[in-house]
Amino acid sequence: MTKTSVSVLGLGEMGSTLAAALVEAGHPTTVWNRSPGKADALVDMGAIAPATARDAVSASDVVVACLFDAASVHGVLDPIADLLSGRTLVNVTTTTPEQAREIAGWAADHGVVYLDGGIMAVPSMIGQPGSSVLYSGSATAFEQFRPLLDLWGDSTYFGEDPGLASLYDFALLSGMYVMFAGFLHGAAMVAGAGVSATEFAGRAAPWLSAMTGGFAGYAAVVDGGDYTVAGQQSLEFSDLGDMVEASAAQGISTEVIGMVQNLIRRQIDAGHGKEGLARIYESIKQPG
Amino acid sequence: MTKTSVSVLGLGEMGSTLAAALVEAGHPTTVWNRSPGKADALVDMGAIAPATARDAVSASDVVVACLFDAASVHGVLDPIADLLSGRTLVNVTTTTPEQAREIAGWAADHGVVYLDGGIMAVPSMIGQPGSSVLYSGSATAFEQFRPLLDLWGDSTYFGEDPGLASLYDFALLSGMYVMFAGFLHGAAMVAGAGVSATEFAGRAAPWLSAMTGGFAGYAAVVDGGDYTVAGQQSLEFSDLGDMVEASAAQGISTEVIGMVQNLIRRQIDAGHGKEGLARIYESIKQPG
Repeated sequence: MTKTSVSVLGLGEMGSTLAAALVEAGHPTTVWNRSPGKADALVDMGAIAPATARDAVSASDVVVACLFDAASVHGVLDPIADLLSGRTLVNVTTTTPEQAREIAGWAADHGVVYLDGGIMAVPSMIGQPGSSVLYSGSATAFEQFRPLLDLWGDSTYFGEDPGLASLYDFALLSGMYVMFAGFLHGAAMVAGAGVSATEFAGRAAPWLSAMTGGFAGYAAVVDGGDYTVAGQQSLEFSDLGDMVEASAAQGISTEVIGMVQNLIRRQIDAGHGKEGLARIYESIKQPG
Repeated sequence: MTKTSVSVLGLGEMGSTLAAALVEAGHPTTVWNRSPGKADALVDMGAIAPATARDAVSASDVVVACLFDAASVHGVLDPIADLLSGRTLVNVTTTTPEQAREIAGWAADHGVVYLDGGIMAVPSMIGQPGSSVLYSGSATAFEQFRPLLDLWGDSTYFGEDPGLASLYDFALLSGMYVMFAGFLHGAAMVAGAGVSATEFAGRAAPWLSAMTGGFAGYAAVVDGGDYTVAGQQSLEFSDLGDMVEASAAQGISTEVIGMVQNLIRRQIDAGHGKEGLARIYESIKQPG
């Protein structure tokens, strides 16, 4: 059985890693990057590297775009839209949900089958346990090329709306960046007492990892919509005034923990102090 | 060998659980709570429950205070300071580092040996794997009563400064609350696409748990003090403008992810865009 031919456009660290996984699995792989030199290692592995994106796209059934942003996707693909017609475009470039929908519309206008992907991994994780890629757009393309997609990590399909994978991607990445800020806030708190960030990380990593076990409980309350269910930690009990004060006493910024305190205070001030902490979800849903 | 006699003041859910662990381990245990009725289950197990805090304190070598806040510690103990003299006070009431130091000073003035504790567990975790209690203050008391303290969870001693346990406690709890806010922000982002919080939690929990693996790397950069070390994700690459925009497009508050973006922007605006994301630590260390 002949393996699907694939062209990868964009050979940054992530694009190169995705292409390498394809070459290693025996897919006829063509690669291209705007600036030269990036393809050399892949060519040594067996990839073909034509000089133009036009030649790269014409070589394969599936075209993977791993570019800098939505504008660069258009910059590379608009001039060769005629050639893309009838092929499948798997766009793993990081974009907003709106941008993914716009590119999908452009693809549809040019007869291109479109699948949007959000990669939940750093390059070194690609093809390893823990790597996950989220997809939305053409269900047909997802099913047809799934063996290929699975080379990169655990593949999940969310639906025909091409913006869904990006939305999910952003939601998970938001959680990650916010958690990193919380970790660094904690490190800054203890730094004044001579505790190194490394020592703090050694305690914070297992602690926060264990506390992710609380998500399901908060989610059940949010989905149930009843923040008065018994057994929840109340908003009043969760008042973080002391933590904000302790942060200020250490001479560090209070904006990280103050963000959470604002979410809590808005609910307490609205008369919900006896209800559960999960109610801060309502502060997020309704901007002040 | 006679087990240490212990009195527990404050029988909220946590205090009751701490007392139950002592009774179960065979310690002569005396309990007291301001409002009556809370001691009944513990008395059935074998605890003694006198009517006054004075009588409770006089019964034991070690007094555990698990009260509402620093003011209630003074409210309960000030009138019986004379009786506390010569005994050891283990205060696991949640306080700020400054309050812990103030109470320790008060204890020293009255000849009371003082150990401050921060409980990193919910009541149901006490005595189970994963329960951790942080201590600071009297090293002698920590060593002498460690077998007793270990009944509640993994015990760690930070140093003679009685504020250290509380500072560490607040730092870890800050990280937790900030992470919860990040999780709920993500849940609010995907809610508009019909994804339940429970479904999102099923992906966010393992994702964020895995991403705690990144803490050590950021910590090494912070401790090293060189944010230009190669191989880091740059601040420019981490610009979260698209995520803020996507959050606004979903009609939800941007304050959660905006908090991180502000930390990032301050460093980019100061000319550090090519340096690593860990540099947001400097935004936290130096309030704007």
